Formats: sequence, structure tokens, C-alpha cells
Amino acid sequence: MDEIREECGVFGIWRRNDKDVSKDIYYGLTALQHRGQEAAGIAVCDSSGEPGNICIYKNRGLVSEVFAEHKLEELKGNIGVGHVRYSTFGGSDVRNAQPMAFQYLKGTLALVHNGNIVNAIDIKERLFKEGSVFSATSDSEVVATLIARLRAKTGSVEEAVKQAVPILEGGYALIIMSPRKLVALRDPQGLKPLCIGRIGDGYVISSEDCAISAVGGEFIRDINPGEIITISDKGIRSDTELCTSESEHAHCIFEYIYFARLDSTIDKVSVYNSRYSAGRALSKAYPVEADIVAGVPESGLTAAMGYADEANIPYVQAFHKNSYVGRTFIKPTKEERESAVHMKLNVIADVVRGKRMVLIDDSIVRGTTIANLISMLRSAGATQVHVRICSPPFLHPCYYGTDVSDNSQLIADHMSVDGICKMIGADSLGYMRIEDLSEMTGDLPLCKACFDGIYPTEVKTQG
Amino acid sequence: MDEIREECGVFGIWRRNDKDVSKDIYYGLTALQHRGQEAAGIAVCDSSGEPGNICIYKNRGLVSEVFAEHKLEELKGNIGVGHVRYSTFGGSDVRNAQPMAFQYLKGTLALVHNGNIVNAIDIKERLFKEGSVFSATSDSEVVATLIARLRAKTGSVEEAVKQAVPILEGGYALIIMSPRKLVALRDPQGLKPLCIGRIGDGYVISSEDCAISAVGGEFIRDINPGEIITISDKGIRSDTELCTSESEHAHCIFEYIYFARLDSTIDKVSVYNSRYSAGRALSKAYPVEADIVAGVPESGLTAAMGYADEANIPYVQAFHKNSYVGRTFIKPTKEERESAVHMKLNVIADVVRGKRMVLIDDSIVRGTTIANLISMLRSAGATQVHVRICSPPFLHPCYYGTDVSDNSQLIADHMSVDGICKMIGADSLGYMRIEDLSEMTGDLPLCKACFDGIYPTEVKTQG
Amino acid sequence: MDEIREECGVFGIWRRNDKDVSKDIYYGLTALQHRGQEAAGIAVCDSSGEPGNICIYKNRGLVSEVFAEHKLEELKGNIGVGHVRYSTFGGSDVRNAQPMAFQYLKGTLALVHNGNIVNAIDIKERLFKEGSVFSATSDSEVVATLIARLRAKTGSVEEAVKQAVPILEGGYALIIMSPRKLVALRDPQGLKPLCIGRIGDGYVISSEDCAISAVGGEFIRDINPGEIITISDKGIRSDTELCTSESEHAHCIFEYIYFARLDSTIDKVSVYNSRYSAGRALSKAYPVEADIVAGVPESGLTAAMGYADEANIPYVQAFHKNSYVGRTFIKPTKEERESAVHMKLNVIADVVRGKRMVLIDDSIVRGTTIANLISMLRSAGATQVHVRICSPPFLHPCYYGTDVSDNSQLIADHMSVDGICKMIGADSLGYMRIEDLSEMTGDLPLCKACFDGIYPTEVKTQG
Amino acid sequence: MDEIREECGVFGIWRRNDKDVSKDIYYGLTALQHRGQEAAGIAVCDSSGEPGNICIYKNRGLVSEVFAEHKLEELKGNIGVGHVRYSTFGGSDVRNAQPMAFQYLKGTLALVHNGNIVNAIDIKERLFKEGSVFSATSDSEVVATLIARLRAKTGSVEEAVKQAVPILEGGYALIIMSPRKLVALRDPQGLKPLCIGRIGDGYVISSEDCAISAVGGEFIRDINPGEIITISDKGIRSDTELCTSESEHAHCIFEYIYFARLDSTIDKVSVYNSRYSAGRALSKAYPVEADIVAGVPESGLTAAMGYADEANIPYVQAFHKNSYVGRTFIKPTKEERESAVHMKLNVIADVVRGKRMVLIDDSIVRGTTIANLISMLRSAGATQVHVRICSPPFLHPCYYGTDVSDNSQLIADHMSVDGICKMIGADSLGYMRIEDLSEMTGDLPLCKACFDGIYPTEVKTQG
Repeated sequence: MDEIREECGVFGIWRRNDKDVSKDIYYGLTALQHRGQEAAGIAVCDSSGEPGNICIYKNRGLVSEVFAEHKLEELKGNIGVGHVRYSTFGGSDVRNAQPMAFQYLKGTLALVHNGNIVNAIDIKERLFKEGSVFSATSDSEVVATLIARLRAKTGSVEEAVKQAVPILEGGYALIIMSPRKLVALRDPQGLKPLCIGRIGDGYVISSEDCAISAVGGEFIRDINPGEIITISDKGIRSDTELCTSESEHAHCIFEYIYFARLDSTIDKVSVYNSRYSAGRALSKAYPVEADIVAGVPESGLTAAMGYADEANIPYVQAFHKNSYVGRTFIKPTKEERESAVHMKLNVIADVVRGKRMVLIDDSIVRGTTIANLISMLRSAGATQVHVRICSPPFLHPCYYGTDVSDNSQLIADHMSVDGICKMIGADSLGYMRIEDLSEMTGDLPLCKACFDGIYPTEVKTQG
Repeated sequence: MDEIREECGVFGIWRRNDKDVSKDIYYGLTALQHRGQEAAGIAVCDSSGEPGNICIYKNRGLVSEVFAEHKLEELKGNIGVGHVRYSTFGGSDVRNAQPMAFQYLKGTLALVHNGNIVNAIDIKERLFKEGSVFSATSDSEVVATLIARLRAKTGSVEEAVKQAVPILEGGYALIIMSPRKLVALRDPQGLKPLCIGRIGDGYVISSEDCAISAVGGEFIRDINPGEIITISDKGIRSDTELCTSESEHAHCIFEYIYFARLDSTIDKVSVYNSRYSAGRALSKAYPVEADIVAGVPESGLTAAMGYADEANIPYVQAFHKNSYVGRTFIKPTKEERESAVHMKLNVIADVVRGKRMVLIDDSIVRGTTIANLISMLRSAGATQVHVRICSPPFLHPCYYGTDVSDNSQLIADHMSVDGICKMIGADSLGYMRIEDLSEMTGDLPLCKACFDGIYPTEVKTQG
Repeated sequence: MDEIREECGVFGIWRRNDKDVSKDIYYGLTALQHRGQEAAGIAVCDSSGEPGNICIYKNRGLVSEVFAEHKLEELKGNIGVGHVRYSTFGGSDVRNAQPMAFQYLKGTLALVHNGNIVNAIDIKERLFKEGSVFSATSDSEVVATLIARLRAKTGSVEEAVKQAVPILEGGYALIIMSPRKLVALRDPQGLKPLCIGRIGDGYVISSEDCAISAVGGEFIRDINPGEIITISDKGIRSDTELCTSESEHAHCIFEYIYFARLDSTIDKVSVYNSRYSAGRALSKAYPVEADIVAGVPESGLTAAMGYADEANIPYVQAFHKNSYVGRTFIKPTKEERESAVHMKLNVIADVVRGKRMVLIDDSIVRGTTIANLISMLRSAGATQVHVRICSPPFLHPCYYGTDVSDNSQLIADHMSVDGICKMIGADSLGYMRIEDLSEMTGDLPLCKACFDGIYPTEVKTQG
Repeated sequence: MDEIREECGVFGIWRRNDKDVSKDIYYGLTALQHRGQEAAGIAVCDSSGEPGNICIYKNRGLVSEVFAEHKLEELKGNIGVGHVRYSTFGGSDVRNAQPMAFQYLKGTLALVHNGNIVNAIDIKERLFKEGSVFSATSDSEVVATLIARLRAKTGSVEEAVKQAVPILEGGYALIIMSPRKLVALRDPQGLKPLCIGRIGDGYVISSEDCAISAVGGEFIRDINPGEIITISDKGIRSDTELCTSESEHAHCIFEYIYFARLDSTIDKVSVYNSRYSAGRALSKAYPVEADIVAGVPESGLTAAMGYADEANIPYVQAFHKNSYVGRTFIKPTKEERESAVHMKLNVIADVVRGKRMVLIDDSIVRGTTIANLISMLRSAGATQVHVRICSPPFLHPCYYGTDVSDNSQLIADHMSVDGICKMIGADSLGYMRIEDLSEMTGDLPLCKACFDGIYPTEVKTQG
């Protein structure tokens, strides 16, 4: 599935004495790179130095493109935050790259943010009326301004963060660095992931635990929905006053289906296991006689292994993926288009020739990519192609940061399953049933609004 | 004189239909490049399009480095502002590059600014208390925030600008672009230059008139101190209510001595003539028997011609200047240092050998450069070197944008003229007398605070 | 296996009228990028234009980094050759990038080359004595000079190529472009792969067939060892006079084990099938009781599927590979080193915890990488790790282009299999037996000198 | 004069122990940058190390753009050569950038070359027939190949250079570096300049003496036409066997008029003096009643001072030159063209208004630039513009490296002086008379073939 784009990854670190946290952040962001490839940034601060002296560098591109070694060496400090971005609300302008740093009455702060504030426009309007001025267009700047204004009236950053929570609607994971502290906040529904780990005599906060192990840290636990964590030289403090009861939680199902890294575990559910189980559930729900099972790289592969295991059909690799077809690759023009999918994914003909196959993908948005793949498989000699999809049909827009917000793009919105099956040229098509999602994630309370239209917060369409 | 750095150049343009003003701004900024080589930026707006849709691009480097052709083509609009920057208050961070664009209650505006707001810290403190948040560190952001806040409470941008004038202390030239208008403002003392011209069916505003002719425009007049000019599709409007009487004017003498381009005319005084007259005045004040007269490139050359003419001594070129020794040139280390001045300026030995010479420079800050040059001239065979300086001794810091704000750097602060003469190794030394400055600029009311300590506004040392 | 680096990929195309072959070459080289990531280059020629007017562009970097769209558009022609390079003999200097273009008595030619000329130094010495001068240091320049000198004495490029064959010892695939023709040559042992396809009214020549399908062409056949193919507007001509009998053929086994792309078929043997069969063979030769089978990405995965299938043990994915850890990634220092493998490959702990596993890799050179992986697997809870290697122990250097030419680097050269097993921390270790290689490639005659020391050509150690 | 482009600058250095000559070369090339701005390169060698180990780096751009500090640090050696290039014969391809390094029978050599070999095509043909192959298209590669082939048959590089002299026709200055020696050669007519200096315990060779003083060296003398200088650890050796008598010398007059730097002295004639004298000569030959004398920057300025002095009319600066209009400046399109000259050169109106002026330029090629300038001067109020040109009319092509080789471009070839005067809009026009050239350079034997068609060598038009 190419059409849904993940959003952002956040990373924060606090170490007692080590002044080279920028390098840890570099490794952490590289581990989170799958969450956003458009821009990357790091802000650090030396808590023993001049207060307010935050060093920041950010630019468009991958982490390894944005940061050369000498850049990291210039970023000296023992506290830091980092960000990888795929643009959601606000456009791809470099002004919207994060971290964002702000001066305000009591000093300086830097902020990184994953997610979407559903009522950002309302809050912005209110801040405008109070005389605020904005230089970027992202909702992160709105959050930062809100917190800075609240901070001007309260005793501490963490108190300002706390006062902001009732105002902010949406899914978000935030890390705020003041010259002496890190403050981390996860939205009260737990839509966005955020976890904490230990590293030496310090702490690390990350969107996913894979980035904690990437820097040699040790996972402690997920931050609870609504929890505010403050790390300073007085140690770590958890404010759970705004934490919600489990019945109010709504963890985004798409983190498991698509966003998160295969080796991460979020809210105690292993991403790998959830996908493998999705494959098993699809096999039970839609059994079919076939010779081989294959997945669409990358996110369909694990489910294909689960399907193969449950159905006792050999798992094979039907596609070769060319990892050199990257961002700067010159795409073929319309006339040359047919070869385009071949460039990135090519069928391994010897594997599929003369075979009845099951093909697993994570989701269908427009349906054009899977249709192409099926046609390639048939050209290579596959006799049957039975498609199984690890998620229910996409019927509703997401307001929390997933970049598919317009119904007209959703094929399932205006076509039956049979119609889609024919359109993509499959022999049969089975979508994961909503009631089977629990096979993926057990009794974890989920946000599955994109499938069932039940939104965990108030929403308002953004003009 | 290498040690004083000019500040900034501003340029604005309003055309009725032409959507390619970015190219005009490109040429205008190239003509103003001498005012700042650190960063360049352009913001444009299409007044017939979506309001608020301002396109902006800025980066470190020369105009020709920052803007490639395709960049200019992306910047479509019929109104625009541009800026070349040398950092004064705020540091060289790219965040401080201009134009600065802001969203506020009533829409969007972009701002370019030359000068220094003396009380920027006080205004910032006041804005902090009202809840403002800043993302850059320059005083331009302070001005923009102030205007945006005032705009939120008043009926028009020009009204907001007008209310800002009594609050802002210092020397400044401002151009503000709202989606439909250009508003230009010159400080009530007229410290910073700003003029207006006609181009086709539109108007152009510029720090110096050389940029007006560079784009094929026609100079109309200087903007008056305290005058607010508004250009929109209703035509041009001048608000003179805050204009001061001539006795309150204080035009910066250093624009004539050093900052402005030789072919500019500011406040009706030709820069070339003022420098040529400075040379004549020096010749009358400090005559000396000599064989040749030469200037230190570039800003000493014209005065040398005037001195030569007055004294009836041949004008010669004593130095070759290597124009390829630019910003990226790798400077010699200390041990290799002696050759450094040779790299940039080399004596033309055949010209000075066996000659008694007069050497003209614009000013002396630390005295090291002129000392080096004199030593080079003597090595090449000059028998006498009589130094004449086009400005009086530097005794007081400038708070209005000139980057020499610390007395300890000023050699004249702690040394007599005789002492300096010995220190630099000259046979005689003559500084322009304060009473002779009128020979340069006639009866133009001047700010010459750096010489006499009489400041035209309240000042406050910035911490 | 990280330690062996593939060498080069070559691509050539001849079209009757289409002047945009540079874009085809771009796609072809992208499909061959796995064969070399250090430098890329394209040379084209318009056969209807001025003879001798060859346009060439090459630089360090990936194909997509070297070629922007406007670069391709400047390269107009209907004949062309392209190259991706990993440096073997000659160093990484950009002077050694290919294509290499030469002027000689009869005109101009461009050449691309994959492989190693074993007696390059001898030939160079001989050319030196005849007065030749070299500006690069690669053996490709030696080949080109040899052919150009022969061409000066003979009637055609193809004749010169033919005369060069008895002089050149080694493994090589060559494509030579003269202003009107493409001439392709494969070494008489068939050590290096080269095949031909049809595209529209033209032809394409490539190291692997995956690049033929990438440009929408149709595979015709492998070029025979010793065969010379000439393509011009007179059509295609095959000169088989120097072709050897099958008993003299010696196809490089490492193309199947490691170099070639999974979806390629070389000399009628599918790379996928050969690797899958290697897994099966390993399972038969070294059965073991285990819960799961996994491969080391990328080249160990297919064999792991084969092993799993043969042994009837579930195939799983034990590692997540971070595809963003690329060439420009800043590697951790020694002290940070432990996390380095984690950055690129991370264990999916939920998969291996409490499991007895079989781990398949393609080969062992130094043994350090596999030792690290095993230690990671045990940390994640794997109870047993049985290692199976798809190739026999590496005992002899390769002189034909594989970048492992020094015995001291080969762990198998100075350690027993038991010793290696202990050193890498495996529970058991099984190398593919030489006699089982036929299970991979059937009765294809192979060069397996790196395992058995039997070289198909004379060799001479290069000083 | 914009239309004639200078050619190249060469620089060589030999130091006993200092391994950082690359930095000296960097400074030397910066001092010679006026001779070529298209490409720059440095090759160095450590004479105490492995023989043949020459390090080289070259690229398109100015010296300061091509060489960053770390690049210079990688170029370690005590012998070196450098080159700045403006393309003459061979095109602007980076393959033609110098130094060129070659391997040949006896080792390695690097070569830098200023000038043009008139019979390069003949020599190339001959080398082709002997089996040579060329990878670049410049005549420098021809020279290098010739020398390498001769070296293969003789005992030393200097002997090979000597044998090459009778074969090479044209104007050239060569520096050849072998791993232990520098060999410098100046053509027997002395068309191109080359001189030698001392630096510490070593030597430096340069196109002009300004580069010797730029590195802190001491000028020794010009190298004689036909002289071969060899520098090695045995000291310096001069071979004068091929030196010609003074009557055969023919020094290029354009070095004085335009190419060389104002502060250089070539063949004992000061460039400054020669230009100043040209001005005096013009004043005597073409006196006119006028108020002011001005020059066209840069090369017309000195002559204008001489004219002013001789005529006793005040010297003034009539144009401001914008030094920021550089190579990357986006030129105005045809419609915007009028402003183009204004961008680079702007009239200082106050200087010329109401004045009768004499305007001095170095030469006229097409006449369009001077016509534009005259029109600008009249617009600014000049009442009369009398043009004086420091060189006779251009009537014949130059075959020795000056980039004007086609008669059709030369306005003087098909128009009378009166016609040109009218065409450019001058009130009067006076060209330097051929018989007056001796006033510039005394009795120095000159090549003035471009004026009188008398070529000092055989010439042959290059196809």
C-alpha cells in the first residue's frame, strides 16, 4: 500500500552529563525514519550552561541527508529532542519542520509533535484574537504558542502543558524541552504512541521502542494516555491526574497494520504478532485452495507468513523490491508508465508460474497499485490470485494524522467488495472483518474510526 | 576600511498586472548587495489571487547564490519585497533572514527592515508579557509582532504602522507587504535612507536610488523622515502626519562616507560628490608637498581624486585589488598571515617607487589594516606616506545599525592623533574635521554621533 | 554477508530512431544498481549525426544521485552504454568511473566493462613499451587502449575486439560503442554474465535480464562465452568463432549465491530457484530439530524459505532491516559500536523468544557479522541457533572481480568448521558441500575456484 | 572589453621539505585567477615517498569554489603544479581541466599548460598513427602524450621536453612535474609569459610575478624564450640550448593591453606603466578639448589616468562597477536587456552631466558594449564622448590562445574607423597607432599579429 503516508516520529533524551546527545538522537531518529521521510531536525540544550541557549538544526530530507558529522558535533548538549516529519496539516514548507523553538516570557522552549490537533483552527483563531502572530502554518506552532502563553501565567512548563490538555482535541504525542527539563505528554485517548526508556543515568522518550533499543537504551513502559512525564535533575516525575480510564482509550489500529516498525511493541502488543495474527485470521475467515502464499512488500509480508502457517500452504517471495528506487528517482512519464511498477517491484516469475496463489496486502485505498501487481502476476504465469487484505474497508476519513482525509479517494466508499474484486482483477477478495480485529490486538481498546466512523474525540472538518 | 560592516538593503515593488516582480526584486537586490552579503530573501504576493498567499524564499549567501532561475519563476506575484542582510542585532542565524512573514488576526503580512530599534528589548519584554512568543532573535520580528498586534486592533495596516512609530526608537526603514498593499516607513529622524520611484504603471521603493535605475525605473523622490507611504490599487498615498521638521532630521553621515553606493544620491546629496568634496576639504585642511595621491580601494578612491584635483598632484592607482578573494577564500594562518593583505590588495610597485605620496582612506577603526598597507607601500619604495582620513575620529558607539558598538575597539578612543600616526607608521595623519563635514553634504542635517556623541534619539545600551 | 562487494553492471542499447535511450539506460542501470553503488555513468551517441560525437556523463554516487532529469535530457542519442561500478582493481577515483570514452585513429569509442583482466599489468607494460600513456588506473582503460590500437590496424571495431580476446585473460563482459555500432563480448569461460533482449525495433544488452524487463524489453538469450555480438543498422550479427565448448565454461557460482538479483535468470538457471534449492540441500545435508527457520537479510532469506519447506519447519522473519541506514549514515564509533548492528538489523524478539532456530546466511568471510547476529538472537531469547551457510568455506582468493583477494581475511583459511562454530557462538554450523552445489545450478559448468582453488584461466597475483 | 577572454595561468612549486605546497599553489592560483575562471586544479607529489604517487584534484569553478580547506589538506606533497583555465581549444568539458596526469613507461607525470599549439591536430594525427588513444580533447593532452612517448625513448623528462620543442609550434608555457622534478619550458618566441622566483629553500614558477609575491616568494627573473628549467634536489638547472636570439622573440602585446594583472611586470616591462603610457600616447596622437577623462573598468582605467595626466584634464570615475554581478547572475532576457549594462556598470551621473569627456577602453571587438556605454553616458548628460582605444584595430585572428579566432566577429575587419565611430555613437574615435605601440613597451620585440597579420610561427587554420 503506497497511498497512506505515516506522519511523524518524536524522540527526546535527558542525560546527566553526556554532552553528545545529538548523536543518540541521530540514531533514534534513524530508527524512526519510517514514520516520516520529508524533514528531520534536532534541538539540544546544555542544562549546565546559559539558560535559554537552545541549538537547533533542521532541514528537508532523510536524517542521514540532513545531518553530516560536523553538524552533530556543533549540537552540544545533554538534553535534546528530535523529529522526523511527513507533512500532515500545514504543508511541506521547511518552516514547518520541527523541532520548533520559541522564546517566551520565561525563557526558551523547543517542541516536537506527532499527531493532529483537530481543533487547531479554533485555537489559532482564539490566539489571534489575543494578539498572537504566527510565522509557520502547522498546528505544532499553535500548540507551542498555546503552551508558551499558558506558561507565562503559571509556575512551570509542566503546569502549562497540563492546562493545555483540556484545550487540545485530537491525537498527539508531544515532547517539550525547556532549558532544564523534558516534558512528555500523550493524548488522553492514547491515539498516538509514546514510550519511555532508561539510558545510562538518563532517560529516553520515543514514539516507538525500536528507537530506544537502537541507542542502547532499555524500554521501561508506554506512557499512559493523558499522562505527563517530567524529567529533570530532580529525577523523573509522572503526573497522572489527567489520565483517562481504559474505557476511554482508543489506540490507532493503523499503527499495527501499517505505521509502526515490525520489531516494535506498542501498548504491550507486538506489531509483528499483530500482523502475523491478521494473516491467520484472514486464513480462517477466507480459506481458499492454493499452492503458494505471498505478501506485497513490505507491510503485507508478515501477514502472509501467518496465513501460510495457518493454511499450511508454502510461504514464498513473489516480488523483488528494488530498494534503489528512492525519493530522487525520475519517474517514467505516462507513456513509459507500465514499466514503473516493474522498476520498484518485479515478479519473480519462476515462483508464481503455473501457481494458484494467495496475495496479502495491508489495505486498499485507490486500488490501482494492487490491480497492477495482479496483472504482473498473471503475466508471469500465476493461474489464480486470491487477494486478502489485513484491514477492513476504508470508509471514513481520519482526522488524527493519517494523510487520507477525503472520502472521494476511498474506493470502498463507492464500490462493493465484489466490484472492487473485479476492478482489481482478483479471483477472490477478502477484507479483514471488523469483529476479527481483536485477533490482532486482543482486548486493546482501539480507534478504528476509518472503518466504523466512531471517532473517539469531537471532530470538525478542516476547511 | 574593512572593519565596519554595512547593514541591510530593502526593496519593494508594486505593479498592476506584471506577475514577475520577483525578477525585478532580484535585480534590485543585486544593486543593493553592497549593503549586506550574508543573506538574501524575496517575498511576493499576487493581489488578484487568494488573499494571504505569500510566497517567500530566503537563504544565506549572495543574491545570485540564493536565487537560481527556477526559484524566481516559482515566486509569482505582482507585489513583493526583498532584503539583503548583514547581521546587526540578532546573530547570523538563518531564522533571522528576511523577509519575515507572519499570519495574524486579519491575514498575512511580510516585512523587510533596515536599521536598529534601540528599544527593541523593552518592546519585546512588553510583548512577552502580553503573551507573545518569538521564534527568531532579531528586532525585525519584534517590529512585525508589534505591528501585527496593533493591526488586530485597528482598521488597516497603515494605521497599525502609524501607531507603531511612537513606540519604535532608532533608525529604520521598513517596507511591509500585506496581500493587497505595500506600506513603507522611514524613521522620523531620517537616519536610514529610503526612496521611491516609478516603474511602468507601478512603483518601487528602495534603500538607494541605484536600485531603482537598475530595474529600469525612474527616481521620484526620497521618502521624508516620518512619512508613511501606502501603495495599492487605489494608487499611492502619503501620510505625513508624523513627519518631523527639518531641525529634527539627522541623516547618517556614514551612508556618504562608506555605506551607500558611489552612484547613489541620498536626500539630494550625491554620494560621489560628497566623497570627492571630502578629498578637497582634506587637501585644504592638511596640505602637503607630495608627488602622487592614491586611495585605499574602494571607498577611498573618490576622495583621493578630489584631493588630487584640489592639490594639483597626479592621481594614481597604487593598489591592485584581487576581486577573487571572496567569502569562501581560505584565509592564511597566522604564520602565513603576512601574505594575506598581499592576496587582496597588492601594491603596484612601479607607481610608488621613490615617490612621496598622499594616501586617502575613509576611516580608521582598529588601525591594523592601514598600518599594513603603509608598510607595504614603504617596502615597494614609497619615500613618504601622508595619510588623510575622510571622517573624524571614531569616538562613540553607533546604536543605529552600524556594527561597531564597543568603544574598546575604537583606536581613537584611547590614542591621540599623533599616537595613531606613529602606530600606523605614517609620515603625517589628518582626520576630517567635524566642522568640515558640511563641505561634504552642504547644510543637510546629519547624525554624526559616532564622532561627537550627540545622539538624535534616546539610547540605551543593549545587554 | 557484508564483506564481499559485487563489482559492476553493464548495459547497452541500440534503437533505430528513438533519441532518448539515456532514459532507458537510466532505468536499466537502476535495475542493476545492486551490482555497484559507487559510481554511475552513461554515454550516448546519435548515429545519424556527426560521427564521433559521443556525449558522456558519469560521477560518484547512485544512479538516481548522479542523474537529474535535465542531465538525461542533455544526453541525446539512439545508441548508448551505461555502467554502475563498485571499484575492484584501480581504486575509487572518479577517473576510473565508466563509460570510458576514447579518441583513436579511426574515430571515437566508449566502453563499459564488468570483470577483471588477470593479466592487465602485463598488457599495460606492453602498451607502455609501444608508447601508450594512461590517464586512469583501471584495467578498463587498458582494455580500451588495446582495442583502440588493434582497431587502428584492422578494418572494424568488431575485428579489433576479436583480436583482443586471445590477449585478455580473466572474466569480463564488455560493451563497446562506436558512433554507429554496439559490440558486446563475453569472456570465453563465461565467468561474467551478459545477455541480450529486444526492445521495439532495437536491442538491449545487459549484465542481467532483470534490467531488460525493467525497460520493457523482451529477453532473447544469454550471450555465449566467447561470442561477439555486433548491432548496427544492418541488424544484429553474431560471431561465434571464438566460442568455447561447454566443457571449458566456468560460470561464477557467486552470481547465484550473492551477486545477481533474485528475479534474474542467468545461463538458464533462475537465481531464486538456485537459492531456494541451496536451502533444501542444506536441510538434507544438515537436518536439525528446530522450531523456526530464518534467514539473514537479504541474500539468506530465499534459502531459508527452501530450508523451511524441506524441513517442514515454519519460516519466520527474525530480523527487521532498516533500509535508511545507507551510504551516508554516520557510523557509531568503537565505543558506540554495539548498537551498530542494531541500527541496521534488529531482532524481532517476539519471533525468536524461547525458540530453537535455524539461521541461514549466504557465506562467511570474517565471521564477525554472523557472530554479532547470533549474540543478538540469544539476547532476545533464542534458545538454540543452528547456522547453515549457502556456500562452501571460502579458501582461495578470487581474481575475477570479487573484492576478496587476500587469504588472510578468510576465516576458513585458518580455522576448522568446529573452530568457526565456536567462534561465532552457534550451536551447530553446516556449510554447503561442494558436491551439493549441483543441486543449486544443475549441470551448469561452474567456476568455484574460491572454494576448490581450481581456476579456469591462468592467474598471476597482482602486486 | 568583455569579448576577448584570457586563457590560462600556470603555477609550479618545489620545496625541499614543506609538505603543504598545495596551500601555496592555492594562493598562487588565486593571484592568477584573472587568467581563467572556468576551472582550477592542483597536483602534488611527495618526492620522498613512493614514486609515482601523484595526488590531483580539479573541477569547474573558481579556485575558491573548487578547493575547500579539507581538499587542500588531502593534497600532501612538496612538489606541485596548479592551473586556472579558460577554455581555448578543446571545449569546456571538465575532462580538459588541468593538471593532466599520465602514467607512462617510466612512471607518472603531471602537466600544466598555457597557450595554444598551432599544429596540435597534425601531432595528434601522427600519434594516432603510432597507436595513441586520447581521452580528452585538449591540445594539452597531445603535448603530454608527445612528451611521454619521447620520454619512453630518452633518459630524462627534461630531455624528452627538449625533443618536443622542435615539434611543437605555437605559443606555450609548460610546467611538467615528475615525481622528483619540476621542468618548465617557455616557447622559443616567448609568446606566453613564464617567470621564476625563490621561496624559502625552494622555487616557484608562475605565469606572472604577482603570484610569486602572493605566496611570499621573491622574483628572480623571466624564463627565456626556449629555455628549459629543471628543479630537483640537485638544485636548479637551466638548459639554454634551444634559446633563440632576441630578434626571433615575439612577446604577446595583449598581455600588456589586457591579459596580465596590473601589478605584474613581464619581460621587464611593467603592465601598469605600459597601460599608463598607452594613455599618454593616445593623448599625443589624438588630442581633444574636453572637461574630464574616464576609463572603462577595469582595463581602461590606467590608460585614462595616463591620458588625463598628459592632457592635463581631470581624471574622474564615470562608472560604478557592481562586483556582485558574477558568473551565476541570471541575465535579463532580451526584453529586459536594456537594464543589463546598468546592472554591471552604472554611470555616475553627477560626474558626467554637462561634460565633454574622453573615454578610454582597451580594445573594440564587436563594438556593442562600447556603444551601450556611450548611450548611457549621453543619457546621463555627457555632451561629448571622445573614444580612445589602447590598441590598434583588430584585423587578424590569433592562433596562440586568445579566444577571438574568426574574422567575421571583428568589426574592424569590415568597417572603417569612421564607420565604427558612427556606429558606436562617439564624437570622435582614435585607435592606438601600430607605430606607437613601442611607447607602451619600449624596444621589446612584440607579436602584434592580430593587428598587422605578421605571425611569428607558421600557422594553419584549425578545422
